[in-house]
Amino acid sequence: MWQTIDNKLYRKFEFNNFSEAFAFMTRAAMEAEKSDHHPLWTNVYNVVEVWLSTHDAGNVITDKDRLMAEKLNQRSEEHTSELQSRVDISYAVFCLKK
Amino acid sequence: MWQTIDNKLYRKFEFNNFSEAFAFMTRAAMEAEKSDHHPLWTNVYNVVEVWLSTHDAGNVITDKDRLMAEKLNQRSEEHTSELQSRVDISYAVFCLKK
Amino acid sequence: MWQTIDNKLYRKFEFNNFSEAFAFMTRAAMEAEKSDHHPLWTNVYNVVEVWLSTHDAGNVITDKDRLMAEKLNQRSEEHTSELQSRVDISYAVFCLKK
Amino acid sequence: MWQTIDNKLYRKFEFNNFSEAFAFMTRAAMEAEKSDHHPLWTNVYNVVEVWLSTHDAGNVITDKDRLMAEKLNQRSEEHTSELQSRVDISYAVFCLKK
Repeated sequence: MWQTIDNKLYRKFEFNNFSEAFAFMTRAAMEAEKSDHHPLWTNVYNVVEVWLSTHDAGNVITDKDRLMAEKLNQRSEEHTSELQSRVDISYAVFCLKK
Repeated sequence: MWQTIDNKLYRKFEFNNFSEAFAFMTRAAMEAEKSDHHPLWTNVYNVVEVWLSTHDAGNVITDKDRLMAEKLNQRSEEHTSELQSRVDISYAVFCLKK
Repeated sequence: MWQTIDNKLYRKFEFNNFSEAFAFMTRAAMEAEKSDHHPLWTNVYNVVEVWLSTHDAGNVITDKDRLMAEKLNQRSEEHTSELQSRVDISYAVFCLKK
Repeated sequence: MWQTIDNKLYRKFEFNNFSEAFAFMTRAAMEAEKSDHHPLWTNVYNVVEVWLSTHDAGNVITDKDRLMAEKLNQRSEEHTSELQSRVDISYAVFCLKK
């Protein structure tokens, strides 16, 4: 899902609304501070676009960027434990119906 | 899931980790500012406990609290559009295997 | 401090570090949800750039944008009550030294 | 400003409003993730109360807590660079008037 554009890793994340988009940004901000590696990013309503490159290495893509890309993927996909149980139940119900 | 304790609506939310818990708190904070109705809440790691009552009505439970409780339920259960498609695919895969 | 560029209000905010920049973004996000008026914005480390225009009015600048610009100015300048007292003390110390 | 209560470091932070309080919490959340050391905290409107102790050391106060306390003090006092210049100007104006 990430593409290489102009020596940067780029990905566009889309959410259902601003609230979800900003919750993702908050989680990404915590990751950024944790690894002291900060993205260039843009947001408008439900869309977050991220560009990753390593300033200290001369603005090219390094393993720090690949690791951050991986973490942002995870952060955009995780969900609540409440939801988890509901999904598990849905599986069962769905398949029982068949 | 909400209980009435001492003239307050109370619910305990549990998440997978701090990052998810604080993302939920950020979304709840946006709701609180939006409706100018702010919770008493406590967090430690993956757990968020919320108490809702209406100060201006003499610290009792009003419709403002019931509405906020409803919104917090929604906010704790929503997830990303990316996840949604993945779950749909999982349904199919899971049932095909059976 | 806000300029008009391509039918948008534009301002660049600079902070001391990412932590301050993202704290400002969090406050701005709460304002955005409150007024249901969301910016186009970009962040890299300590810099936040904001573009405001009204989609529903055909992407031109309206009073909704002027009001949001005003609110973002306030949010970028407010500080803690702890700081306030410290500054007051500093005033005194600074002037006593003269 | 931090007190020792029941084997925990405790401090009450007061801000001008919820927006400032939650901006502080966001900054504290980033610190917590960075050092993998998470507080027990409570918020209602403009007040944030924090208790720090080290679970892995048997719920007593350790250097991890003292360091986090120091960081939270800093985070609650920092402000924007825009404000900084304004305060500098205020100093001058204030003293010139005398």
